[in-house]
Amino acid sequence: MRFKKIEGLIAATFAPYNGKGEINPSILSNYAHSLKKNGVKGVFINGTTGEGASLDLEEKQILMQAWASEQTEAFKVMAMLGGTNQKESIILGKLAADLGLYGVAVTAPYYFRPGNVAQLVDYMQPIAASAPDLAFYFYHIPLLTKVDLPMLGLLEAVPDKIPNFAGIKYTHHNLMEFNQCLRFNNGSYDVLWGWDETFLAGLAMGAKGAVGSTYNFAAPLYQGIKKAFDGGDMQKALALQEKSIDFINLYGRFGGPAAGKALLKLCGIDCGDFRAPVKTLDPEMLEALKAQLTAQGFFDFSNLNTQDS
Amino acid sequence: MRFKKIEGLIAATFAPYNGKGEINPSILSNYAHSLKKNGVKGVFINGTTGEGASLDLEEKQILMQAWASEQTEAFKVMAMLGGTNQKESIILGKLAADLGLYGVAVTAPYYFRPGNVAQLVDYMQPIAASAPDLAFYFYHIPLLTKVDLPMLGLLEAVPDKIPNFAGIKYTHHNLMEFNQCLRFNNGSYDVLWGWDETFLAGLAMGAKGAVGSTYNFAAPLYQGIKKAFDGGDMQKALALQEKSIDFINLYGRFGGPAAGKALLKLCGIDCGDFRAPVKTLDPEMLEALKAQLTAQGFFDFSNLNTQDS
Amino acid sequence: MRFKKIEGLIAATFAPYNGKGEINPSILSNYAHSLKKNGVKGVFINGTTGEGASLDLEEKQILMQAWASEQTEAFKVMAMLGGTNQKESIILGKLAADLGLYGVAVTAPYYFRPGNVAQLVDYMQPIAASAPDLAFYFYHIPLLTKVDLPMLGLLEAVPDKIPNFAGIKYTHHNLMEFNQCLRFNNGSYDVLWGWDETFLAGLAMGAKGAVGSTYNFAAPLYQGIKKAFDGGDMQKALALQEKSIDFINLYGRFGGPAAGKALLKLCGIDCGDFRAPVKTLDPEMLEALKAQLTAQGFFDFSNLNTQDS
Amino acid sequence: MRFKKIEGLIAATFAPYNGKGEINPSILSNYAHSLKKNGVKGVFINGTTGEGASLDLEEKQILMQAWASEQTEAFKVMAMLGGTNQKESIILGKLAADLGLYGVAVTAPYYFRPGNVAQLVDYMQPIAASAPDLAFYFYHIPLLTKVDLPMLGLLEAVPDKIPNFAGIKYTHHNLMEFNQCLRFNNGSYDVLWGWDETFLAGLAMGAKGAVGSTYNFAAPLYQGIKKAFDGGDMQKALALQEKSIDFINLYGRFGGPAAGKALLKLCGIDCGDFRAPVKTLDPEMLEALKAQLTAQGFFDFSNLNTQDS
Repeated sequence: MRFKKIEGLIAATFAPYNGKGEINPSILSNYAHSLKKNGVKGVFINGTTGEGASLDLEEKQILMQAWASEQTEAFKVMAMLGGTNQKESIILGKLAADLGLYGVAVTAPYYFRPGNVAQLVDYMQPIAASAPDLAFYFYHIPLLTKVDLPMLGLLEAVPDKIPNFAGIKYTHHNLMEFNQCLRFNNGSYDVLWGWDETFLAGLAMGAKGAVGSTYNFAAPLYQGIKKAFDGGDMQKALALQEKSIDFINLYGRFGGPAAGKALLKLCGIDCGDFRAPVKTLDPEMLEALKAQLTAQGFFDFSNLNTQDS
Repeated sequence: MRFKKIEGLIAATFAPYNGKGEINPSILSNYAHSLKKNGVKGVFINGTTGEGASLDLEEKQILMQAWASEQTEAFKVMAMLGGTNQKESIILGKLAADLGLYGVAVTAPYYFRPGNVAQLVDYMQPIAASAPDLAFYFYHIPLLTKVDLPMLGLLEAVPDKIPNFAGIKYTHHNLMEFNQCLRFNNGSYDVLWGWDETFLAGLAMGAKGAVGSTYNFAAPLYQGIKKAFDGGDMQKALALQEKSIDFINLYGRFGGPAAGKALLKLCGIDCGDFRAPVKTLDPEMLEALKAQLTAQGFFDFSNLNTQDS
Repeated sequence: MRFKKIEGLIAATFAPYNGKGEINPSILSNYAHSLKKNGVKGVFINGTTGEGASLDLEEKQILMQAWASEQTEAFKVMAMLGGTNQKESIILGKLAADLGLYGVAVTAPYYFRPGNVAQLVDYMQPIAASAPDLAFYFYHIPLLTKVDLPMLGLLEAVPDKIPNFAGIKYTHHNLMEFNQCLRFNNGSYDVLWGWDETFLAGLAMGAKGAVGSTYNFAAPLYQGIKKAFDGGDMQKALALQEKSIDFINLYGRFGGPAAGKALLKLCGIDCGDFRAPVKTLDPEMLEALKAQLTAQGFFDFSNLNTQDS
Repeated sequence: MRFKKIEGLIAATFAPYNGKGEINPSILSNYAHSLKKNGVKGVFINGTTGEGASLDLEEKQILMQAWASEQTEAFKVMAMLGGTNQKESIILGKLAADLGLYGVAVTAPYYFRPGNVAQLVDYMQPIAASAPDLAFYFYHIPLLTKVDLPMLGLLEAVPDKIPNFAGIKYTHHNLMEFNQCLRFNNGSYDVLWGWDETFLAGLAMGAKGAVGSTYNFAAPLYQGIKKAFDGGDMQKALALQEKSIDFINLYGRFGGPAAGKALLKLCGIDCGDFRAPVKTLDPEMLEALKAQLTAQGFFDFSNLNTQDS
């Protein structure tokens, strides 16, 4: 195993925009400070939460550069490179290598979709080779890519073709396959759990690291789950997980992904609105969301913005 | 809450056939004895594992009667009633009531599919009313029915229409929804976890009871998981769950559902072959399966057939 | 080619119920008389429109017997046999053989689904063999069965296993595959077009025969399309097809399949309501439907009930 | 109706690369010459066939500029603008306006997918507004975007929001909806048929114009279909359509989209290989494809490269 496995929480960061919807890296040092303060182990940028699909090449480059300057030994920066466009992914891969980021990732291309693992590997090979010393992750998210290839088959296929293959960001519901990937070839690969709302189920099935969007503003809650889990107090762990479920449950009623960005704003980090086609909450909905979060006690356990005071 | 919640393991039984493929209830007393001996709390008959979709009305009636005679206070019999045919489900519901079974269940109809919760409830209402004193469960298995309605919506809709609604046999991957259903209205409903290979994830997210096919021959393994879980030893719990995953993993390579029936046969209970379109293992495959199970130590932890000796 | 190909329209009949929802074969002679009078070439019974999935074995047998007595050289009776239950399909196949029906059909089983053509053929083989002298059709309707196997592959696989395989009732949207099936092995098989709303597209791509539910009450309209098509007047053919589209368009707004049954009732043949989970139109909706149909001129071209007068 | 409807064939062009896989606009004048000579009415560039999803912004701009110089009154250039990236689509829209292209198009965004028509319209609105005098088309291709919203609903929603909405490139199988869109509001919108293999079915259901990839090299065949159709000779029309089906049938066996690019090369226009993840034919497969095409008489009816001689 060439790369150390990630333990703990990686925040899938939101894309920061100013009021005109332009990319706004100026807030990132504040953002990174908050994450570090809350014990988050790194960031996964330009991904789903980060609206990689809505950003242009230059914007992604700006964000990679800005986040790179926040990287430390204890705070890893991982960048999503694609996309449907292999050529652009390679350009971004080279930049990631130049910047010395910890890792990079790609999803399966989601317009022309690979029909089998070999096609996926052929597609990824030159991208991974563009950052040959960085940890390369496959980002498995069939819900959005509509590509659901067998991940054990992928792990079997990569060693010859992608020497810097580090693992999988596993955002899928098949916990049996997830566990099998964790154990594949005596645990040769890092498999990061991608669902915050079932973080505890991921832990139970073997997860050590996780990537998610609610770690942006509620990391202490999940650290509490992990601590209870490690101490064998499954009742407490579940009680905390249920707090997570309860505020994530509001997402659907308050506009899906945009609700997450709104939550971060309520916690003091203003990343602006989501780009279309994601709908942004209007002020009235934002107030209603805030009221319901307060009622749930959300601002007690997601104390991102209050720990300095 | 009108019905007590089920704790522990319910075996989704296989349909017993003789060598000619005819229904063969004569083996059931042996079968039930094994289950009871292994601490299984009851059976779910004529379901997916039980090939309800391949049995005719009379065959289902014969099995209901035969299993009814095995029912005790500590060993519940629950019968799947449908199907796509409401009329037949009502006939079976009345029989279940006459036999005094513990509970009954239906899936969503899977040819004409209900488009919303109200339609599903209207379909179920007269079926549930045919056995008004029995615990009525909705069997949620979108993988096969291709009906994926919101279960919280169902729980909201049932009280007025189905007074004997007891809960959900939840064979779906959404552990967030599963947990929310468990907590709905202060835990008013029983929600049984339906995936053996992720039994531990179910426990972590709140499951108390579970229905599955591998509880037919490997109940002690899952009881071991539960015991380790209750004692806070999550490492041991996972190690045992991984044994479960490893033999279930053989299913796919050895013919899907038919492999489970073959396993039970290897454990001493011969239920014959599956009916078409499910393919049965040929003798060569059966030998190979046996060899691989032995290599995994399967026959040590699934000691169904050896405990009497 | 062992069986003559069907030319013209086959009505997929509705299940006849009385006011209590019980099977009511007494209206069938009237129903058959109307169809014959309108030049319909036969019936496809106990299928989707005929609610085969909601009928029990005895009800299907009663309907097969009742329709058998309407069969003539010029009016073929074809019966759907399955279902998910091979055993019941064989019982029905034998009855079809005894009754001397023209043909029989099965869909792919839709609970345990065949994963490939070989599995489907193995499932169908004994059913087809139960009526060895009758034309055996595969009823391809992936929209409902959720089984979408390649039909050219099926045609390649059947000759050895199913000597009485006559063809496919093709209720799918792939007009390229439909045409290829029509031409397979120099046109060895009958491939019946299964979408009334695109009857003309089917004709253009080679259809000679068609099975559908709106041929129950609007056969003259489709005969008009065929006549215009045969005469090379594609403009007129399309104008008539658009009348078909316009009334079928009302289905969705007036309750799906149940609207068809309501239309037949408005044309003088009362088959009662659909069984659950299909919702029946309430009286108000029925009036609104009638008004819209009248506005479209529906009762001028679907003159099923007025031709005797 | 603000824009004239398109009649005849629009070629969905392939992306031209040199031997190193770099964009190669130098061949386009030859390419355009061939298309014009064969009576093609225009091109649809940077679409599915054109690998828009695999091109970067600059490459798309180069191709738009190069094709713009081929535009004439009789040869329209239409450019696909998106994508998942609204911002980039707007940049491309402005360029299209500056270049005076005939029209532009977008698909539904296919990573964050719009959940309803309103969201789709909101997403498209600023893109359409970036080229306010150009014909704006929605490119409906659910097979790839996995977005299948009701097109009649879209036509109802656009007038207020998108004044330059011209119509739909309809690459979907619902010929009923296609016909309804053609007739919507007395035929206010242009609806272009997007399946070459069922071109005749499209004509039968009302199509006047069509966009497709095989019009790149086999336009005379489809013009023959149209001519036979117009003359009421449906038998001949179908015979020609079957030639189309037969060579398109080879696509699947010879590597999907890449086979089309290989066919064009065999016809004398070398656009290089497809980019990953689409697999390119190896030389052996190319020879086999050529042999089978020759056997089908393909090079007689697709005489793109021989008409000058």
